[in-house]
Amino acid sequence: MKQLRVGFQGEHGAYSEQAIVNKFGGETKTIPCKSIRDVFNLAEVGSVEFAVVPIENSIEGSVGETYDLLLTSSVKVVGEIVLRVIHCLIGLPSARLEQIRFVYSHPQALSQCRGFVASLRAEPMITYDTAGSVKIIKDQGDNAAAAIASEKAAALYEMKILARGIEDYGRNYTRFLVISKTDTRRTKESKTSIIFSVPHTPGSLYGALEAFAKEEINLTKIESRPTRQRPWEYYFYLDFDGHIQDKKCARVLAELTKHSVFLKVLGSYPRSRVELN
Amino acid sequence: MKQLRVGFQGEHGAYSEQAIVNKFGGETKTIPCKSIRDVFNLAEVGSVEFAVVPIENSIEGSVGETYDLLLTSSVKVVGEIVLRVIHCLIGLPSARLEQIRFVYSHPQALSQCRGFVASLRAEPMITYDTAGSVKIIKDQGDNAAAAIASEKAAALYEMKILARGIEDYGRNYTRFLVISKTDTRRTKESKTSIIFSVPHTPGSLYGALEAFAKEEINLTKIESRPTRQRPWEYYFYLDFDGHIQDKKCARVLAELTKHSVFLKVLGSYPRSRVELN
Repeated sequence: MKQLRVGFQGEHGAYSEQAIVNKFGGETKTIPCKSIRDVFNLAEVGSVEFAVVPIENSIEGSVGETYDLLLTSSVKVVGEIVLRVIHCLIGLPSARLEQIRFVYSHPQALSQCRGFVASLRAEPMITYDTAGSVKIIKDQGDNAAAAIASEKAAALYEMKILARGIEDYGRNYTRFLVISKTDTRRTKESKTSIIFSVPHTPGSLYGALEAFAKEEINLTKIESRPTRQRPWEYYFYLDFDGHIQDKKCARVLAELTKHSVFLKVLGSYPRSRVELN
Repeated sequence: MKQLRVGFQGEHGAYSEQAIVNKFGGETKTIPCKSIRDVFNLAEVGSVEFAVVPIENSIEGSVGETYDLLLTSSVKVVGEIVLRVIHCLIGLPSARLEQIRFVYSHPQALSQCRGFVASLRAEPMITYDTAGSVKIIKDQGDNAAAAIASEKAAALYEMKILARGIEDYGRNYTRFLVISKTDTRRTKESKTSIIFSVPHTPGSLYGALEAFAKEEINLTKIESRPTRQRPWEYYFYLDFDGHIQDKKCARVLAELTKHSVFLKVLGSYPRSRVELN
């Protein structure tokens, strides 16, 4: 059997890679990419079966870049993965916690651990990736430098965990979307993601949401992103319970087309069943 | 007369400082702060009359950190400023455009100029501030390094503008909020900003928006941010036309309290009259 190939952003040991293993199993061939844009490109041309991109974090909020790429990309959203994020402070094998003066990581991880980094009186240093930061401090070989990344990343680069669970808020989850060139089969317990825009008139967003309220469809997320065509005009991104093939979802979308000037269905996919604590 | 003191995030020459000059005039004493959190602190304790924080960009979207700080801070929102952003590529006086291999700037500025940086085949380098990046490359003294920042920043650090208007999209505006410890007097043409949250049941957001639609109040922005208490529950941030003292705004807010589990009025303030192109 051919090995499944799944793309992700970051270096080996990244949280996205952990999400892939949780969903597709440890035998999967994971393909690291420099940017989220590169991950989308990989999925679009079909050189991987799937790719995984971060869409929102329960503390930091939405990943704007992923939202913007979903608008223009031809990929389908075929799944979601929810991952509990446990950040570690990682240093050289010879480093001690009280020596740390510089903490390297991705901006999202740094802000999730802002209180902890401040308590060390260390300076936050922005990089493009969590696992990549472990690589950076390994290359530097300085006992005063540490990185924020996963336990997996520490093991992979043979570095030392100086502190574990250093995030300021315990309920730290990242939701990832699984994207693919081709759609997948329907399952039970579905969610659907769409993008739409409404005319710039009072009550237009309300009018668009009315259809969902009438059918008693639960909205799980609403997000707005600038259209980039005119300042302060937005695309709305909606996630809701149900599959696009459900009768009431079909009725809502038919109604929505009357209220919107743009409508794109990103996909219907099985809802993640991760228990939140 | 005492000189007006206004805080901002970044180094002298930052876009936020330009916004202050546009609104309060060139005689204002501008106080640079390392982080947006520090700007809020300065305004809260009243050691400045006003402070200016970025809230959204017409290309990159909302500034999550500012939204989150508005939730917990005691400051009032007393104004908004819209600034047309024109990015410059800035190098050493001896540098030439074709030498540039590294481009330093704030993540938002780097992504607004992604196409231009790619066309140079230069590597983007993330820093905490646009004007601060000019300082960094001045200190490095390397002809291969450039920064993305304002014309003002180039002049201030006596550096050379290698290219001007390098943003990928021309309609690039940043909206700033003016915050203060104390409220200001009412003016004509007002806008109001509020935060609310709704119960986690179908139709609850729709129910909250119904009040605005009935009064034909124009919503100018809706944004959601995670509550941080339970994953995938959100605070909604609304901007709408009108002043909190208007009768119809008062009626809407009274109605909204019935649909929401949390409601905070950030402030009513004069609408920016910058013409968009």
